[in-house]
Amino acid sequence: MRKVVIAGVGMTPFGISEKTNIEMFSEAALTAIADSNIEPADIQALFFGNCLGGFEEGQLHMAPFAHSAIGLPISAPATRFESACATATVAIRHAALLVGAGVYDMVLAGGTERATVMSTPLATRTFAMASHALYESPTGITFPGVFAMAAYLYAANYHIHIKELKLHMAEIAVKNHYHGAKNPKAHFQKEIDTDKVLNGMMVADPLQLLDCCPFSDGAAAVVIMDALKAKELVKKPIYIAGMGQASAGPLYVQKNLTRVRAREVASQAAYSQANISPKEIDVCELHDCFTIAEILAVESLGFYEFGKGYDAATKGETRLGGKVVVNPSGGLKAKGHPIGATGAAQVTEIVEQLRGEAGDRQVKGAKIGLVDTLGGDLGTVCNLILRSES
Amino acid sequence: MRKVVIAGVGMTPFGISEKTNIEMFSEAALTAIADSNIEPADIQALFFGNCLGGFEEGQLHMAPFAHSAIGLPISAPATRFESACATATVAIRHAALLVGAGVYDMVLAGGTERATVMSTPLATRTFAMASHALYESPTGITFPGVFAMAAYLYAANYHIHIKELKLHMAEIAVKNHYHGAKNPKAHFQKEIDTDKVLNGMMVADPLQLLDCCPFSDGAAAVVIMDALKAKELVKKPIYIAGMGQASAGPLYVQKNLTRVRAREVASQAAYSQANISPKEIDVCELHDCFTIAEILAVESLGFYEFGKGYDAATKGETRLGGKVVVNPSGGLKAKGHPIGATGAAQVTEIVEQLRGEAGDRQVKGAKIGLVDTLGGDLGTVCNLILRSES
Repeated sequence: MRKVVIAGVGMTPFGISEKTNIEMFSEAALTAIADSNIEPADIQALFFGNCLGGFEEGQLHMAPFAHSAIGLPISAPATRFESACATATVAIRHAALLVGAGVYDMVLAGGTERATVMSTPLATRTFAMASHALYESPTGITFPGVFAMAAYLYAANYHIHIKELKLHMAEIAVKNHYHGAKNPKAHFQKEIDTDKVLNGMMVADPLQLLDCCPFSDGAAAVVIMDALKAKELVKKPIYIAGMGQASAGPLYVQKNLTRVRAREVASQAAYSQANISPKEIDVCELHDCFTIAEILAVESLGFYEFGKGYDAATKGETRLGGKVVVNPSGGLKAKGHPIGATGAAQVTEIVEQLRGEAGDRQVKGAKIGLVDTLGGDLGTVCNLILRSES
Repeated sequence: MRKVVIAGVGMTPFGISEKTNIEMFSEAALTAIADSNIEPADIQALFFGNCLGGFEEGQLHMAPFAHSAIGLPISAPATRFESACATATVAIRHAALLVGAGVYDMVLAGGTERATVMSTPLATRTFAMASHALYESPTGITFPGVFAMAAYLYAANYHIHIKELKLHMAEIAVKNHYHGAKNPKAHFQKEIDTDKVLNGMMVADPLQLLDCCPFSDGAAAVVIMDALKAKELVKKPIYIAGMGQASAGPLYVQKNLTRVRAREVASQAAYSQANISPKEIDVCELHDCFTIAEILAVESLGFYEFGKGYDAATKGETRLGGKVVVNPSGGLKAKGHPIGATGAAQVTEIVEQLRGEAGDRQVKGAKIGLVDTLGGDLGTVCNLILRSES
């Protein structure tokens, strides 16, 4: 396989937008194309992510319309991916596999979501369709409920009082808002404190409002390129050193909600391909859809032993300046979560970090970054390891 | 790239089913896996197609749940594709690209749709979301309307009276029902005559009821394999000799509705890769969502010059025994059209034809077959060329 890089990235501001999914994606895509010093006509395929377009805008089959809006050639096929929250990461992984294989030299990949056209309760109910429709949805469970159960189970498994766990979870929200306040594209650019988290509205016990990420509008896109081609075009290509994707079916086949098996398998594949250990990761964008989700992730990704990752934010170890900076963008929690765009935004953040272009939220000397995206209630995980050098 | 084959195929009966999308897909998938002489544990990835699951069953993120139902390993990622009617063909193409590249040796790909949970008018309206939501849907257009316009334009362009064109279109319906009557898995297994077509209910002038394919329930799946591995496992692996996929945006960028530009580009890529000309195709499954669509397809695929393909069925040239047999399965028209499954069913038919296992509808001596699937209103086309020998 050839070496593959991210040559360019683009991202809209995340938050509330008046634009359509296709308009937002075009904005991000044209930015990524310009950032790569190429033209739309150079793109050989579009790997397009969107999750709820049918419900948001009555728009299916969005990929060829985005393709046309960007001005891509007819010979560059446009393909839509949907893997719940992991949609864009999965699209990027497949694009990178095909560039690595020599099928394409230059591919555009990313995603878009216009989630705020629905109210938060309606969006929550709509997105709960990423749970199993026969065995989970009829119980009335939505994603806050799934992660609330995981929090109680975590507390029970590791003999931590739920009140103590909630305090550490609140510290994760505080950290990610601290990071988000330094990100001019974040949905929430405002710091909060633990009192605010713990006094918030209860969403699904023990998760309070600020334990939950928002639904956002936004798009992000990246250009994936053969490394040799990219060297001629851009100053700082970022190498894709390892990738993994794994699937673990509905909740009833999960043995332990606090161990995300698909993540353990996917991240192990990525570490193995990159030939590194978790200790070598300088910066990580991971799937903090809820504060407890960040705890589960830092453990499954190997930064902490199981049962030992819950107080990482409290100790400052995952904050800017810490040993492994987690979600310097603000994460889903503060940067926002436009479902189908999220993975591409995580990649964009890591690329900017590894280029040294992350401004106030720059992780000093970052050389190796990890992207982690979880789809649905533990059904899909996709991981990418990026490096500033090949 | 390595040589890639279809090692096994599986398909449910098409029609009206009480089963869920996941149940139907599992049935097709386990048949394809058994047909390949392997076990679910041997599968390294699932490329899963579904179009309207969110509307049919309130089910998004269906791929990992299908993955679990079939019993695939966690390390075999499940990825959903959606390219309107071309969904499964696009999934199969990407699977074949990655097997060819050596990323995987054995991949399961296909699709499922449970379209009849909606009434035909509701399904038509829902599926019209594969038109452009800003520029087409607000006009009230649905797919019968798009193809009705194409029929009038065809008649005008080539100076054929619409009444004459309708007669030739009816002959296509008659032919495909004649084929479907020989297919024990077809939605409609009953012959019709031109009188019945021409006296049918008007749907979108000039298209009458029997000019239109039905919405169906059903699933189909194939196992894509490295050719060397397959030789050890199955007697008649069918080679993927050429592939093409292309995208041409919304209707307002189409220069001429009777020339499907994405098909011209995609099929040319497939012919070129297979190093054959259209004349060498013995059997073709193409996208006859409406009778006029078959006319457009036989021309864009190169079987007939533009403006010369309209009376192919009337002359018997595309019927069993003709020079290029088109839609021996009955096509979308008679076999049925479970949207997300259609491409995989087309591949299944061609594989059975090239193996010489197509029973009463066998095309004698068929050695080279073509699959053609159109997604949306000309937005996506995906073509595959299959051969019985490498």
